[in-house]
Amino acid sequence: MTGLASGGRLAIAGLGPGDPRLVTPEVAAALETATDLVGYGPYVARVAAGPGLAVHASDNREELDRARHALDLAAAGRQVVIVSSGDPGVFAMAAAVFEALESGPPAWQALEIAVLPGVTAMLAAAARLGAPLGHDFCAINLSDNLKPAALIERRLRLAAQADFAMALYNPRSRARPEGFARALAILGEECGADRLICFARAVATDEERLSVVTLAAAVPEMADMRTVVIVGSSATRRVGRHVYTPRGSVPAGSG
Amino acid sequence: MTGLASGGRLAIAGLGPGDPRLVTPEVAAALETATDLVGYGPYVARVAAGPGLAVHASDNREELDRARHALDLAAAGRQVVIVSSGDPGVFAMAAAVFEALESGPPAWQALEIAVLPGVTAMLAAAARLGAPLGHDFCAINLSDNLKPAALIERRLRLAAQADFAMALYNPRSRARPEGFARALAILGEECGADRLICFARAVATDEERLSVVTLAAAVPEMADMRTVVIVGSSATRRVGRHVYTPRGSVPAGSG
Repeated sequence: MTGLASGGRLAIAGLGPGDPRLVTPEVAAALETATDLVGYGPYVARVAAGPGLAVHASDNREELDRARHALDLAAAGRQVVIVSSGDPGVFAMAAAVFEALESGPPAWQALEIAVLPGVTAMLAAAARLGAPLGHDFCAINLSDNLKPAALIERRLRLAAQADFAMALYNPRSRARPEGFARALAILGEECGADRLICFARAVATDEERLSVVTLAAAVPEMADMRTVVIVGSSATRRVGRHVYTPRGSVPAGSG
Repeated sequence: MTGLASGGRLAIAGLGPGDPRLVTPEVAAALETATDLVGYGPYVARVAAGPGLAVHASDNREELDRARHALDLAAAGRQVVIVSSGDPGVFAMAAAVFEALESGPPAWQALEIAVLPGVTAMLAAAARLGAPLGHDFCAINLSDNLKPAALIERRLRLAAQADFAMALYNPRSRARPEGFARALAILGEECGADRLICFARAVATDEERLSVVTLAAAVPEMADMRTVVIVGSSATRRVGRHVYTPRGSVPAGSG
Protein backbone atom coordinates (compact mmCIF):
# COMPACT_ATOMS: atom_id res chain seq x y z
CA MET A 1 0.00 0.00 0.00
CA THR A 2 1.47 3.38 -0.94
CA GLY A 3 -1.38 5.73 -0.03
CA LEU A 4 -4.01 6.10 2.65
CA ALA A 5 -7.76 5.94 2.29
CA SER A 6 -9.29 9.03 3.92
CA GLY A 7 -10.80 9.09 7.38
CA GLY A 8 -8.99 6.14 8.88
CA ARG A 9 -7.59 6.27 12.37
CA LEU A 10 -6.12 4.00 14.98
CA ALA A 11 -6.66 4.25 18.72
CA ILE A 12 -4.45 2.12 20.96
CA ALA A 13 -6.62 1.74 24.04
CA GLY A 14 -6.06 0.43 27.55
CA LEU A 15 -8.93 -1.54 29.10
CA GLY A 16 -7.51 -1.40 32.63
CA PRO A 17 -6.88 -4.53 34.68
CA GLY A 18 -10.31 -6.17 34.37
CA ASP A 19 -13.10 -4.42 36.28
CA PRO A 20 -15.30 -2.44 33.84
CA ARG A 21 -15.42 0.36 36.44
CA LEU A 22 -11.73 0.95 35.69
CA VAL A 23 -12.27 1.57 31.95
CA THR A 24 -11.97 5.31 31.25
CA PRO A 25 -14.86 7.13 29.52
CA GLU A 26 -12.36 8.09 26.78
CA VAL A 27 -11.76 4.43 25.95
CA ALA A 28 -15.47 3.58 26.19
CA ALA A 29 -16.25 6.37 23.71
CA ALA A 30 -13.57 5.19 21.26
CA LEU A 31 -15.01 1.67 21.37
CA GLU A 32 -18.52 3.00 20.65
CA THR A 33 -17.47 4.69 17.41
CA ALA A 34 -15.05 2.02 16.17
CA THR A 35 -15.64 0.01 13.03
CA ASP A 36 -12.91 -2.54 13.83
CA LEU A 37 -11.67 -4.01 17.09
CA VAL A 38 -8.27 -5.70 17.14
CA GLY A 39 -6.58 -7.50 20.05
CA TYR A 40 -5.57 -10.60 21.93
CA GLY A 41 -8.62 -12.88 22.29
CA PRO A 42 -9.30 -12.55 26.03
CA TYR A 43 -9.01 -8.74 25.88
CA VAL A 44 -11.29 -8.44 22.86
CA ALA A 45 -13.77 -10.62 24.75
CA ARG A 46 -14.02 -7.95 27.47
CA VAL A 47 -15.57 -5.49 25.00
CA ALA A 48 -19.35 -5.58 24.54
CA ALA A 49 -19.28 -5.47 20.73
CA GLY A 50 -22.33 -4.18 18.90
CA PRO A 51 -23.50 -5.65 15.56
CA GLY A 52 -21.61 -3.02 13.50
CA LEU A 53 -18.20 -3.83 14.95
CA ALA A 54 -15.82 -6.14 13.07
CA VAL A 55 -13.84 -8.10 15.65
CA HIS A 56 -10.32 -9.36 14.88
CA ALA A 57 -9.07 -11.52 17.76
CA SER A 58 -5.58 -12.97 17.67
CA ASP A 59 -3.14 -15.08 19.65
CA ASN A 60 -0.96 -13.60 22.40
CA ARG A 61 2.37 -14.19 20.68
CA GLU A 62 1.49 -12.27 17.52
CA GLU A 63 1.91 -8.68 18.72
CA LEU A 64 3.72 -7.31 15.66
CA ASP A 65 1.38 -9.04 13.22
CA ARG A 66 -1.59 -7.71 15.14
CA ALA A 67 -0.12 -4.19 15.09
CA ARG A 68 0.44 -4.38 11.32
CA HIS A 69 -3.09 -5.63 10.81
CA ALA A 70 -4.52 -2.70 12.80
CA LEU A 71 -2.39 -0.18 10.86
CA ASP A 72 -3.44 -1.75 7.58
CA LEU A 73 -7.13 -1.44 8.49
CA ALA A 74 -6.67 2.21 9.49
CA ALA A 75 -4.79 2.91 6.25
CA ALA A 76 -7.81 1.47 4.42
CA GLY A 77 -10.02 4.12 6.04
CA ARG A 78 -11.41 2.15 8.99
CA GLN A 79 -11.92 3.47 12.54
CA VAL A 80 -9.78 0.97 14.41
CA VAL A 81 -9.32 0.37 18.12
CA ILE A 82 -6.57 -2.03 19.20
CA VAL A 83 -6.95 -3.01 22.84
CA SER A 84 -4.51 -3.93 25.59
CA SER A 85 -5.18 -4.88 29.16
CA GLY A 86 -4.03 -2.23 31.64
CA ASP A 87 -2.30 0.73 30.01
CA PRO A 88 -1.25 0.27 26.37
CA GLY A 89 2.04 2.06 26.98
CA VAL A 90 3.29 -0.32 29.70
CA PHE A 91 4.55 -3.65 28.31
CA ALA A 92 1.65 -3.70 25.88
CA MET A 93 0.50 -2.85 22.37
CA ALA A 94 1.59 0.78 21.95
CA ALA A 95 5.29 -0.03 21.54
CA ALA A 96 4.44 -2.89 19.15
CA VAL A 97 2.35 -0.52 16.98
CA PHE A 98 5.20 2.00 16.77
CA GLU A 99 7.65 -0.79 15.90
CA ALA A 100 5.30 -1.86 13.09
CA LEU A 101 4.96 1.77 12.01
CA GLU A 102 8.75 2.16 11.86
CA SER A 103 9.23 -0.92 9.69
CA GLY A 104 6.09 -0.46 7.57
CA PRO A 105 5.19 1.58 4.47
CA PRO A 106 6.18 5.27 4.86
CA ALA A 107 2.58 6.32 4.13
CA TRP A 108 1.54 4.83 7.48
CA GLN A 109 3.40 7.62 9.26
CA ALA A 110 0.71 10.09 8.18
CA LEU A 111 -2.01 8.04 9.91
CA GLU A 112 -3.94 9.52 12.81
CA ILE A 113 -2.81 7.44 15.79
CA ALA A 114 -3.86 8.09 19.39
CA VAL A 115 -2.81 6.24 22.53
CA LEU A 116 -5.61 6.18 25.13
CA PRO A 117 -4.13 5.55 28.57
CA GLY A 118 -5.56 3.18 31.14
CA VAL A 119 -5.00 1.93 34.68
CA THR A 120 -1.95 -0.31 34.45
CA ALA A 121 -1.75 -3.54 36.46
CA MET A 122 0.93 -2.37 38.90
CA LEU A 123 -1.10 0.67 39.94
CA ALA A 124 -4.29 -1.37 40.37
CA ALA A 125 -2.30 -3.90 42.41
CA ALA A 126 -0.67 -1.16 44.47
CA ALA A 127 -4.09 0.35 45.19
CA ARG A 128 -5.42 -2.97 46.49
CA LEU A 129 -2.36 -3.45 48.68
CA GLY A 130 -2.18 0.11 50.02
CA ALA A 131 0.57 2.29 48.55
CA PRO A 132 3.69 0.15 48.04
CA LEU A 133 4.70 2.33 45.04
CA GLY A 134 4.20 5.51 47.07
CA HIS A 135 7.75 6.66 46.47
CA ASP A 136 10.41 6.22 43.75
CA PHE A 137 9.93 2.93 41.91
CA CYS A 138 10.65 1.04 38.71
CA ALA A 139 8.79 -1.35 36.43
CA ILE A 140 10.67 -4.30 34.94
CA ASN A 141 9.35 -6.89 32.50
CA LEU A 142 10.86 -10.23 33.55
CA SER A 143 10.03 -11.94 30.26
CA ASP A 144 13.21 -12.88 28.44
CA ASN A 145 11.41 -13.25 25.10
CA LEU A 146 12.82 -9.96 23.84
CA LYS A 147 15.89 -9.27 25.96
CA PRO A 148 18.78 -11.27 27.41
CA ALA A 149 18.51 -12.69 30.93
CA ALA A 150 21.76 -10.91 31.81
CA LEU A 151 20.12 -7.52 31.22
CA ILE A 152 17.20 -8.46 33.49
CA GLU A 153 19.67 -9.46 36.21
CA ARG A 154 21.62 -6.21 35.81
CA ARG A 155 18.47 -4.10 36.05
CA LEU A 156 17.26 -5.94 39.16
CA ARG A 157 20.60 -5.41 40.91
CA LEU A 158 20.86 -1.71 40.01
CA ALA A 159 17.19 -1.13 40.95
CA ALA A 160 17.84 -2.72 44.35
CA GLN A 161 20.98 -0.62 44.82
CA ALA A 162 18.96 2.49 43.97
CA ASP A 163 16.48 1.38 46.66
CA PHE A 164 13.53 1.58 44.28
CA ALA A 165 10.32 -0.23 45.02
CA MET A 166 9.84 -2.51 42.01
CA ALA A 167 6.90 -3.75 39.98
CA LEU A 168 7.74 -6.93 38.10
CA TYR A 169 5.55 -7.78 35.10
CA ASN A 170 5.36 -11.22 33.46
CA PRO A 171 7.27 -12.83 36.31
CA ARG A 172 6.85 -16.43 35.37
CA SER A 173 6.15 -18.15 32.10
CA ARG A 174 5.30 -21.81 31.74
CA ALA A 175 8.12 -22.15 29.21
CA ARG A 176 10.84 -20.63 31.41
CA PRO A 177 9.80 -20.85 35.07
CA GLU A 178 13.42 -20.85 36.27
CA GLY A 179 13.81 -17.15 35.44
CA PHE A 180 11.69 -16.02 38.36
CA ALA A 181 13.54 -18.28 40.82
CA ARG A 182 16.73 -16.55 39.70
CA ALA A 183 15.11 -13.13 40.15
CA LEU A 184 14.09 -14.03 43.71
CA ALA A 185 17.63 -15.19 44.47
CA ILE A 186 19.09 -11.89 43.17
CA LEU A 187 16.57 -9.87 45.17
CA GLY A 188 17.43 -11.86 48.30
CA GLU A 189 21.13 -11.10 47.82
CA GLU A 190 20.59 -7.41 47.17
CA CYS A 191 17.67 -6.58 49.50
CA GLY A 192 17.97 -9.05 52.40
CA ALA A 193 15.57 -11.63 53.81
CA ASP A 194 13.22 -9.20 55.58
CA ARG A 195 12.25 -7.13 52.52
CA LEU A 196 8.50 -7.23 51.77
CA ILE A 197 7.31 -8.75 48.50
CA CYS A 198 3.69 -8.67 47.30
CA PHE A 199 2.02 -11.05 44.86
CA ALA A 200 -1.05 -9.60 43.18
CA ARG A 201 -2.81 -12.05 40.88
CA ALA A 202 -5.63 -11.13 38.48
CA VAL A 203 -6.29 -7.83 40.22
CA ALA A 204 -9.76 -6.35 39.71
CA THR A 205 -11.21 -9.65 38.49
CA ASP A 206 -13.20 -12.38 40.28
CA GLU A 207 -9.99 -14.37 40.60
CA GLU A 208 -8.04 -11.68 42.42
CA ARG A 209 -5.63 -13.02 45.03
CA LEU A 210 -3.20 -10.95 47.08
CA SER A 211 -0.40 -12.05 49.36
CA VAL A 212 2.40 -10.26 51.16
CA VAL A 213 5.44 -12.08 52.55
CA THR A 214 9.12 -11.41 53.20
CA LEU A 215 11.72 -12.38 50.61
CA ALA A 216 12.77 -15.18 52.98
CA ALA A 217 9.31 -16.74 52.62
CA ALA A 218 8.83 -16.09 48.89
CA VAL A 219 8.83 -19.05 46.50
CA PRO A 220 8.53 -18.95 42.71
CA GLU A 221 5.18 -20.76 42.77
CA MET A 222 3.57 -17.69 44.34
CA ALA A 223 3.59 -16.07 40.87
CA ASP A 224 2.20 -16.99 37.48
CA MET A 225 1.74 -15.02 34.25
CA ARG A 226 -1.35 -13.28 35.64
CA THR A 227 0.59 -11.99 38.65
CA VAL A 228 2.21 -8.61 39.13
CA VAL A 229 4.92 -8.79 41.78
CA ILE A 230 5.71 -5.71 43.85
CA VAL A 231 8.95 -5.65 45.82
CA GLY A 232 9.20 -3.01 48.52
CA SER A 233 12.02 -0.52 48.96
CA SER A 234 13.92 -0.52 52.26
CA ALA A 235 11.26 1.86 53.60
CA THR A 236 8.21 -0.24 52.67
CA ARG A 237 6.27 -1.44 55.70
CA ARG A 238 2.91 -2.68 56.92
CA VAL A 239 0.32 -0.60 58.70
CA GLY A 240 -2.82 -2.48 59.72
CA ARG A 241 -3.97 -4.50 56.68
CA HIS A 242 -2.04 -2.27 54.30
CA VAL A 243 1.46 -2.14 52.78
CA TYR A 244 2.95 1.23 51.95
CA THR A 245 6.10 3.15 51.15
CA PRO A 246 6.31 6.54 52.84
CA ARG A 247 6.89 9.72 50.84
CA GLY A 248 10.35 10.19 52.32
CA SER A 249 12.88 7.41 52.14
CA VAL A 250 13.70 6.49 55.69
CA PRO A 251 14.27 2.73 55.89
CA ALA A 252 11.63 0.76 57.82
CA GLY A 253 12.64 0.42 61.46
CA SER A 254 14.95 3.45 61.48
CA GLY A 255 12.35 6.23 61.13
CA MET B 1 -10.64 9.57 69.71
CA THR B 2 -10.51 5.96 70.94
CA GLY B 3 -13.41 4.36 69.03
CA LEU B 4 -15.01 4.59 65.61
CA ALA B 5 -18.51 5.70 64.73
CA SER B 6 -20.15 3.02 62.57
CA GLY B 7 -20.41 3.24 58.81
CA GLY B 8 -17.50 5.53 58.13
CA ARG B 9 -15.13 4.88 55.27
CA LEU B 10 -12.35 6.60 53.39
CA ALA B 11 -11.68 6.33 49.66
CA ILE B 12 -8.37 7.72 48.37
CA ALA B 13 -9.26 8.50 44.78
CA GLY B 14 -7.27 9.47 41.69
CA LEU B 15 -8.85 12.05 39.39
CA GLY B 16 -6.45 11.41 36.52
CA PRO B 17 -4.39 14.16 34.91
CA GLY B 18 -7.20 16.64 34.16
CA ASP B 19 -9.54 15.59 31.37
CA PRO B 20 -12.86 14.35 32.88
CA ARG B 21 -12.86 11.55 30.27
CA LEU B 22 -9.89 10.08 32.16
CA VAL B 23 -11.76 9.78 35.48
CA THR B 24 -12.69 6.13 36.06
CA PRO B 25 -16.34 5.20 36.67
CA GLU B 26 -15.22 3.75 40.02
CA VAL B 27 -13.99 7.16 41.16
CA ALA B 28 -17.06 8.92 39.77
CA ALA B 29 -19.31 6.54 41.74
CA ALA B 30 -17.37 7.09 44.96
CA LEU B 31 -17.73 10.86 44.54
CA GLU B 32 -21.49 10.50 44.02
CA THR B 33 -22.05 8.74 47.35
CA ALA B 34 -19.56 10.73 49.42
CA THR B 35 -20.61 12.98 52.29
CA ASP B 36 -17.21 14.70 52.53
CA LEU B 37 -14.63 15.66 49.93
CA VAL B 38 -11.09 16.42 51.06
CA GLY B 39 -8.15 17.59 48.96
CA TYR B 40 -5.81 20.23 47.65
CA GLY B 41 -7.89 23.21 46.43
CA PRO B 42 -7.34 22.91 42.66
CA TYR B 43 -8.12 19.16 42.71
CA VAL B 44 -11.27 19.59 44.80
CA ALA B 45 -12.34 22.26 42.31
CA ARG B 46 -12.35 19.62 39.55
CA VAL B 47 -15.22 17.75 41.25
CA ALA B 48 -18.78 18.83 40.46
CA ALA B 49 -19.99 18.84 44.06
CA GLY B 50 -23.70 18.44 44.74
CA PRO B 51 -25.46 20.31 47.56
CA GLY B 52 -25.09 17.40 50.00
CA LEU B 53 -21.31 17.25 49.81
CA ALA B 54 -19.18 18.95 52.45
CA VAL B 55 -16.03 20.23 50.76
CA HIS B 56 -12.75 20.57 52.68
CA ALA B 57 -10.12 22.22 50.47
CA SER B 58 -6.60 22.71 51.78
CA ASP B 59 -3.19 24.02 50.81
CA ASN B 60 -0.70 21.90 48.87
CA ARG B 61 1.93 21.69 51.61
CA GLU B 62 -0.42 20.20 54.21
CA GLU B 63 -0.56 16.60 53.05
CA LEU B 64 -0.27 14.95 56.47
CA ASP B 65 -2.76 17.33 58.09
CA ARG B 66 -5.17 16.73 55.22
CA ALA B 67 -4.77 12.96 55.59
CA ARG B 68 -5.45 13.15 59.35
CA HIS B 69 -8.50 15.28 58.73
CA ALA B 70 -9.88 12.73 56.26
CA LEU B 71 -9.24 9.85 58.67
CA ASP B 72 -10.86 11.78 61.49
CA LEU B 73 -13.99 12.39 59.41
CA ALA B 74 -14.19 8.71 58.45
CA ALA B 75 -13.72 7.71 62.10
CA ALA B 76 -16.70 9.93 62.91
CA GLY B 77 -18.84 7.87 60.54
CA ARG B 78 -18.63 10.00 57.39
CA GLN B 79 -18.27 8.72 53.81
CA VAL B 80 -15.07 10.48 52.86
CA VAL B 81 -13.28 10.79 49.52
CA ILE B 82 -9.83 12.34 49.53
CA VAL B 83 -8.72 13.23 46.01
CA SER B 84 -5.37 13.38 44.25
CA SER B 85 -4.55 14.31 40.71
CA GLY B 86 -3.38 11.34 38.62
CA ASP B 87 -3.11 8.11 40.59
CA PRO B 88 -3.24 8.45 44.39
CA GLY B 89 -0.50 5.82 44.80
CA VAL B 90 2.14 7.69 42.77
CA PHE B 91 3.69 10.64 44.64
CA ALA B 92 0.26 11.55 45.97
CA MET B 93 -2.16 11.19 48.87
CA ALA B 94 -2.23 7.41 49.47
CA ALA B 95 1.21 7.27 51.12
CA ALA B 96 0.38 10.35 53.20
CA VAL B 97 -2.82 8.70 54.46
CA PHE B 98 -0.96 5.54 55.49
CA GLU B 99 1.70 7.64 57.23
CA ALA B 100 -1.08 9.40 59.15
CA LEU B 101 -2.68 6.02 59.92
CA GLU B 102 0.61 4.68 61.29
CA SER B 103 1.13 7.63 63.62
CA GLY B 104 -2.55 8.08 64.55
CA PRO B 105 -4.90 6.49 67.12
CA PRO B 106 -4.83 2.66 66.93
CA ALA B 107 -8.60 2.61 66.39
CA TRP B 108 -8.07 4.16 62.94
CA GLN B 109 -6.52 0.92 61.74
CA ALA B 110 -9.97 -0.72 61.79
CA LEU B 111 -11.34 1.87 59.34
CA GLU B 112 -12.50 0.81 55.91
CA ILE B 113 -9.97 2.39 53.55
CA ALA B 114 -9.91 1.88 49.78
CA VAL B 115 -7.45 3.25 47.26
CA LEU B 116 -9.12 3.92 43.89
CA PRO B 117 -6.50 3.99 41.14
CA GLY B 118 -6.33 6.52 38.34
CA VAL B 119 -4.35 7.44 35.26
CA THR B 120 -1.07 8.82 36.57
CA ALA B 121 0.59 11.81 34.89
CA MET B 122 3.53 9.89 33.41
CA LEU B 123 1.24 7.43 31.60
CA ALA B 124 -0.99 10.19 30.25
CA ALA B 125 2.14 12.04 29.09
CA ALA B 126 3.59 8.88 27.56
CA ALA B 127 0.33 8.26 25.69
CA ARG B 128 0.39 11.76 24.18
CA LEU B 129 4.02 11.33 23.13
CA GLY B 130 3.71 7.79 21.76
CA ALA B 131 5.15 5.05 23.97
CA PRO B 132 8.38 6.33 25.57
CA LEU B 133 7.75 4.10 28.63
CA GLY B 134 7.15 1.06 26.42
CA HIS B 135 9.88 -0.94 28.09
CA ASP B 136 11.52 -1.06 31.55
CA PHE B 137 11.31 2.31 33.28
CA CYS B 138 11.41 4.09 36.61
CA ALA B 139 9.60 6.98 38.26
CA ILE B 140 11.58 9.41 40.42
CA ASN B 141 10.25 12.35 42.40
CA LEU B 142 12.83 15.14 42.06
CA SER B 143 11.42 17.14 44.96
CA ASP B 144 13.95 17.31 47.77
CA ASN B 145 11.33 18.28 50.34
CA LEU B 146 11.37 14.81 51.85
CA LYS B 147 14.67 13.24 50.81
CA PRO B 148 18.29 14.37 50.49
CA ALA B 149 19.56 15.66 47.13
CA ALA B 150 22.35 13.07 47.29
CA LEU B 151 19.78 10.24 47.16
CA ILE B 152 18.11 11.81 44.12
CA GLU B 153 21.50 12.02 42.39
CA ARG B 154 22.30 8.40 43.27
CA ARG B 155 18.96 7.17 41.91
CA LEU B 156 19.37 9.12 38.66
CA ARG B 157 22.85 7.67 38.08
CA LEU B 158 21.84 4.08 38.85
CA ALA B 159 18.68 4.39 36.74
CA ALA B 160 20.77 5.62 33.81
CA GLN B 161 23.24 2.77 34.31
CA ALA B 162 20.32 0.32 34.31
CA ASP B 163 19.24 1.92 31.01
CA PHE B 164 15.73 2.58 32.27
CA ALA B 165 13.51 5.13 30.62
CA MET B 166 12.67 7.59 33.40
CA ALA B 167 9.66 9.63 34.39
CA LEU B 168 10.63 12.57 36.59
CA TYR B 169 7.87 14.08 38.74
CA ASN B 170 8.05 17.53 40.38
CA PRO B 171 11.14 18.45 38.38
CA ARG B 172 11.38 22.09 39.28
CA SER B 173 10.09 24.06 42.21
CA ARG B 174 10.13 27.84 42.46
CA ALA B 175 11.96 27.54 45.77
CA ARG B 176 14.78 25.29 44.51
CA PRO B 177 15.09 25.58 40.71
CA GLU B 178 18.78 24.59 40.80
CA GLY B 179 17.90 20.95 41.55
CA PHE B 180 16.64 20.29 38.04
CA ALA B 181 19.72 21.90 36.44
CA ARG B 182 21.80 19.46 38.49
CA ALA B 183 19.59 16.55 37.34
CA LEU B 184 20.06 17.53 33.70
CA ALA B 185 23.84 17.71 34.20
CA ILE B 186 23.87 14.21 35.75
CA LEU B 187 21.73 12.82 32.94
CA GLY B 188 24.06 14.38 30.36
CA GLU B 189 27.06 12.73 31.99
CA GLU B 190 25.40 9.32 32.26
CA CYS B 191 23.31 9.18 29.06
CA GLY B 192 25.16 11.34 26.53
CA ALA B 193 24.10 14.38 24.54
CA ASP B 194 21.92 12.57 22.00
CA ARG B 195 19.50 10.99 24.47
CA LEU B 196 15.88 12.06 23.96
CA ILE B 197 14.11 13.98 26.73
CA CYS B 198 10.41 14.87 26.66
CA PHE B 199 8.70 17.71 28.53
CA ALA B 200 4.98 17.18 29.04
CA ARG B 201 3.26 20.09 30.74
CA ALA B 202 -0.32 20.05 32.04
CA VAL B 203 -1.19 16.94 30.02
CA ALA B 204 -4.89 16.43 29.30
CA THR B 205 -5.78 20.03 30.13
CA ASP B 206 -6.30 23.09 27.93
CA GLU B 207 -2.77 24.18 28.76
CA GLU B 208 -1.07 21.01 27.54
CA ARG B 209 2.32 21.58 25.95
CA LEU B 210 4.67 18.86 24.72
CA SER B 211 8.24 19.11 23.53
CA VAL B 212 10.91 16.57 22.67
CA VAL B 213 14.58 17.49 22.44
CA THR B 214 17.97 15.87 23.01
CA LEU B 215 19.73 16.25 26.34
CA ALA B 216 22.19 18.57 24.56
CA ALA B 217 19.34 20.99 23.84
CA ALA B 218 17.52 20.65 27.17
CA VAL B 219 17.51 23.61 29.56
CA PRO B 220 15.97 23.76 33.05
CA GLU B 221 13.40 26.38 31.98
CA MET B 222 11.66 23.75 29.82
CA ALA B 223 10.11 22.33 33.01
CA ASP B 224 7.99 23.73 35.81
CA MET B 225 6.00 22.10 38.61
CA ARG B 226 3.20 21.13 36.21
CA THR B 227 5.62 19.26 33.95
CA VAL B 228 6.39 15.56 33.88
CA VAL B 229 9.74 14.92 32.27
CA ILE B 230 10.35 11.64 30.44
CA VAL B 231 13.94 10.67 29.64
CA GLY B 232 14.36 7.94 27.06
CA SER B 233 16.44 4.79 27.44
CA SER B 234 19.24 4.16 24.96
CA ALA B 235 16.64 2.49 22.71
CA THR B 236 14.10 5.35 22.70
CA ARG B 237 13.65 6.88 19.27
CA ARG B 238 11.31 8.89 17.06
CA VAL B 239 9.01 7.44 14.45
CA GLY B 240 6.94 10.03 12.53
CA ARG B 241 5.44 12.41 15.11
CA HIS B 242 5.85 9.87 17.90
CA VAL B 243 8.49 8.91 20.47
CA TYR B 244 8.70 5.31 21.59
CA THR B 245 10.81 2.69 23.29
CA PRO B 246 10.68 -0.72 21.62
CA ARG B 247 9.73 -3.85 23.54
CA GLY B 248 13.24 -5.28 23.28
CA SER B 249 16.21 -3.24 24.41
CA VAL B 250 18.35 -2.74 21.36
CA PRO B 251 19.90 0.76 21.52
CA ALA B 252 18.63 3.26 18.91
CA GLY B 253 20.84 3.14 15.84
CA SER B 254 22.13 -0.40 16.42
CA GLY B 255 18.91 -2.33 15.74
